[in-house]
Amino acid sequence: MNRSSHADGLREAISGWTDALGADRVSTEEAVRERLARTTTTCGTRPACVLYPTTTAEVQEVVCIAAAHGTVLYPISRGKNWGYGDACAPIDDAAIVDLSRMNRIIEVNTELGYAVIEPGVSQQQLYEYLTENRTGLWMDCTGAGTEASLMGNTLDRGFGHTRYGDHVATTCGMEVVLADGRVLETGFGHYSNARTRHVYRYGVGPFLDGLFCQSGMGIVTRIGLWLMPEPEAFCCFAFTVPDYDDLAVLIDRLRPLRMQGILSGALHIGNDLRVLSNRTHYPWEEANGITPLPEPIRARMREELAIGAWSGASALTGTRAQVRGAKRAVRRALRGLGELHFGNDRIIQWGSRFAQTFKWTRFGRRIGEQLTSLRPVYGLLKGIPNNEALRGAEWRLRSHPAHPVGDPLDRNCGILWASPVLPLSGSHAAEVVGLAEPIYKEHGFEPLITFTMISERAMMGVFTIAFDKGESDESNQAHACYKALITSLIDAGYPPYRVSLEGMPLIRSADDTFWDVAAEIKRALDPKDIIARGRYIPPLGDQ
Amino acid sequence: MNRSSHADGLREAISGWTDALGADRVSTEEAVRERLARTTTTCGTRPACVLYPTTTAEVQEVVCIAAAHGTVLYPISRGKNWGYGDACAPIDDAAIVDLSRMNRIIEVNTELGYAVIEPGVSQQQLYEYLTENRTGLWMDCTGAGTEASLMGNTLDRGFGHTRYGDHVATTCGMEVVLADGRVLETGFGHYSNARTRHVYRYGVGPFLDGLFCQSGMGIVTRIGLWLMPEPEAFCCFAFTVPDYDDLAVLIDRLRPLRMQGILSGALHIGNDLRVLSNRTHYPWEEANGITPLPEPIRARMREELAIGAWSGASALTGTRAQVRGAKRAVRRALRGLGELHFGNDRIIQWGSRFAQTFKWTRFGRRIGEQLTSLRPVYGLLKGIPNNEALRGAEWRLRSHPAHPVGDPLDRNCGILWASPVLPLSGSHAAEVVGLAEPIYKEHGFEPLITFTMISERAMMGVFTIAFDKGESDESNQAHACYKALITSLIDAGYPPYRVSLEGMPLIRSADDTFWDVAAEIKRALDPKDIIARGRYIPPLGDQ
Repeated sequence: MNRSSHADGLREAISGWTDALGADRVSTEEAVRERLARTTTTCGTRPACVLYPTTTAEVQEVVCIAAAHGTVLYPISRGKNWGYGDACAPIDDAAIVDLSRMNRIIEVNTELGYAVIEPGVSQQQLYEYLTENRTGLWMDCTGAGTEASLMGNTLDRGFGHTRYGDHVATTCGMEVVLADGRVLETGFGHYSNARTRHVYRYGVGPFLDGLFCQSGMGIVTRIGLWLMPEPEAFCCFAFTVPDYDDLAVLIDRLRPLRMQGILSGALHIGNDLRVLSNRTHYPWEEANGITPLPEPIRARMREELAIGAWSGASALTGTRAQVRGAKRAVRRALRGLGELHFGNDRIIQWGSRFAQTFKWTRFGRRIGEQLTSLRPVYGLLKGIPNNEALRGAEWRLRSHPAHPVGDPLDRNCGILWASPVLPLSGSHAAEVVGLAEPIYKEHGFEPLITFTMISERAMMGVFTIAFDKGESDESNQAHACYKALITSLIDAGYPPYRVSLEGMPLIRSADDTFWDVAAEIKRALDPKDIIARGRYIPPLGDQ
Repeated sequence: MNRSSHADGLREAISGWTDALGADRVSTEEAVRERLARTTTTCGTRPACVLYPTTTAEVQEVVCIAAAHGTVLYPISRGKNWGYGDACAPIDDAAIVDLSRMNRIIEVNTELGYAVIEPGVSQQQLYEYLTENRTGLWMDCTGAGTEASLMGNTLDRGFGHTRYGDHVATTCGMEVVLADGRVLETGFGHYSNARTRHVYRYGVGPFLDGLFCQSGMGIVTRIGLWLMPEPEAFCCFAFTVPDYDDLAVLIDRLRPLRMQGILSGALHIGNDLRVLSNRTHYPWEEANGITPLPEPIRARMREELAIGAWSGASALTGTRAQVRGAKRAVRRALRGLGELHFGNDRIIQWGSRFAQTFKWTRFGRRIGEQLTSLRPVYGLLKGIPNNEALRGAEWRLRSHPAHPVGDPLDRNCGILWASPVLPLSGSHAAEVVGLAEPIYKEHGFEPLITFTMISERAMMGVFTIAFDKGESDESNQAHACYKALITSLIDAGYPPYRVSLEGMPLIRSADDTFWDVAAEIKRALDPKDIIARGRYIPPLGDQ
């Protein structure tokens, strides 16, 4: 299609959408488009317009009109895909399908522990529903903040902090609008009256849910989400190890506990810099504007804020006796490695009071600092969303807004996340750290690193590149650093679990049957490639 | 294609396969075809020939030749899909691709707990490998016997008895030969040198593994299988409840334990008849040839063999302290409902000796009978395969072979399994039992019922119809009974997780977007519909 017929098609589509949704739910306003073009990464795109359907039927209409005119749609749930592309389509001039107004919690089943939600439901919204209605159920949430969409995160295969941390594995039953306007119900959902729609994932016949994650095979408009019953007993544990080189042994000591199911939650471990980035800002003055952070300053800050080389936290849940047993196992596993503390609401309250009272002592200050470092993760271990982890995005900013946390897009925060998957083994962790550190250094950044034991056998590394979007040199360096990290990690055998727009071309290669097959399936379901063209799967026209 | 050109194509294909594999690995022998046409169900089909590739490259050749001549292939792993179609293709005259000679255990990783296996690896083979090599790893296995293929069961979404009971959820990384001969590596497998091929399932981009289960989208030639580390502590528990009506309360008492993760294994519950069918044969003489089993005889047999209305078993694993805690929770949950026993190897040995010594007492006999009833499941709780559960298939036989268990196909056993999925809730269990019982009765069969708590929210019901294939009236009745069960269960909102050939048309309906989409994907990957035509997905020509 040439440029002018493309413009004609778009104009006609906009007219069709306006007829279908009403003028107030189709926006071509410059300011709105500009807002959605913003990105925390280095590759933003500009949309042609924004559509706000509120029902599945409206999404069907939107899709049919797009198909008729060959215009590209880019569905977003709430557009908070920070560090991985935000609300930006892979290509310019897409029509953003903003699903944030489809935000109904359709059902919460307290007996079987699940919720059925629409794309626009935020972490905070479900959390409040579960609490206010005294459901006795806990959700899993990510550090992406209170306003992030639960469904959006799941479709990108995000992960959280509890034993339901693998989000894809704990969802069940999708409603999907296909590129020709049909509605697909996966699992058992296509049997009218099926009682098992949201309790058994696979249904009968091929299992299709996997197709709709990290792709543009359809627009998911509803999803079942499993929720945990509040456990009889809950105990958080937090540890720090003083020596960088102890990462490998730390992981190898924890692996058996994870594999035995003694640790069932998604344990997180972060390096000192990652914890620092969440506690404070880059000391531009002290460092005389030099990057990366000079070692003596890093050591001074670590000491002052009582941060170990590596810090980690997770929770133990079950019956009281089981948690007691698990505590013993954790204590045994980490013996001699560093500091280990157990805590629950009561102990943490008590600790805070103690730290406040004795803040004039070194010990009191130390306890206070440790509790402050733990804060971002403690709530998440119980499925309570917060915005604390977003602070890390402000690490490199030259000027800081008065309010401590907020939308990174409003603050010029730059974030890129290289997120390799690793076998749950110390030697692999040491290898990727050794590989990443010189790349960070070469590009003038500090390695902000976390590892999450997402399952019994795998860890996610999240290698953050925090930068100031107001500084164009730094932004260019961040872009180069991200590309170098992703490429080196893939070459070394650690491909990422998820990428930003700048990462998508890096994970694909010609002559890879996997991507060919993905494109063939995409073509079968969306021959005109109108839904999220170029998202993970290469644009069909490129083949 | 008309009949004669079909025959020409087949002849040419056979000649091509003979060139590729050698004459000794292509069989058109009458006896061989006859053997593979046998079925334990009521719908067998006759193959045109049997091919025995031994490598992935040979499977690729087989597929390319089939594609060139438009001949239909039907891959089997070891052909032990008893009660669900055995080795029979959905249509006559397919070329069976028998993968049983691809039986290499390619890798066992003891640190990360996984095996990489080919389709022909049997349950017994992997079990022996793990034991003989002192890997310290346990596998999950099903009651399908020592000779059943692990991969075949997984692709049909079978389930076992341990905390890895959901087989599909504990496999990772497939190698698949597609209909045009390409090899697809799923997950991270398509990145050369990926270290995470068998530890992280999803890879990056859409997750395709689900397509290759219960379908004919490709021929899976290799799969990663997760294995559990032997737990520090293991404790089996077995219970019986005396009253049929206590099923619902039993399940509702156990659900919270399953949802809290206190029970992590796949707990099985069977009714008295199912336990009886495993212990003995239908008392044809005593019943004077009458079916279904008259109530007084059922009561007499139950009493004699010390079988409750419902019996169940599962295992608790973890650290010693955790298992102690879990035991307390189980005891509390089942208080007042019936008999509950805990056991491990030591206790069971001791119990057997006790029963032997005191077999002249009522109590000694009772213990002995209870231990005998437990036998089929006890080994499975530790991942040790056995052939005990196959006995149930002989329940209705008129004459019994001397050897106690063997291949049901050699014994004229008829088996059909209607296997609905239910929410893990007592009222649903009561509802399906109430629905099934009159259907069994009407067709002259006893309801042989088990429920398996496969996950935190779902149960599989397995409603066995055991019949004697030597009796044509009984076979016809079994066929009718199966169809009535499946149809009624779907209507009531409980579609099955898996079906036999006679069930496949029953689960599909015209105007169901799900099956349309499945067929569209199948067409994209296999336009000539040569792989397992008609398996779950309707034949493409039918549309």
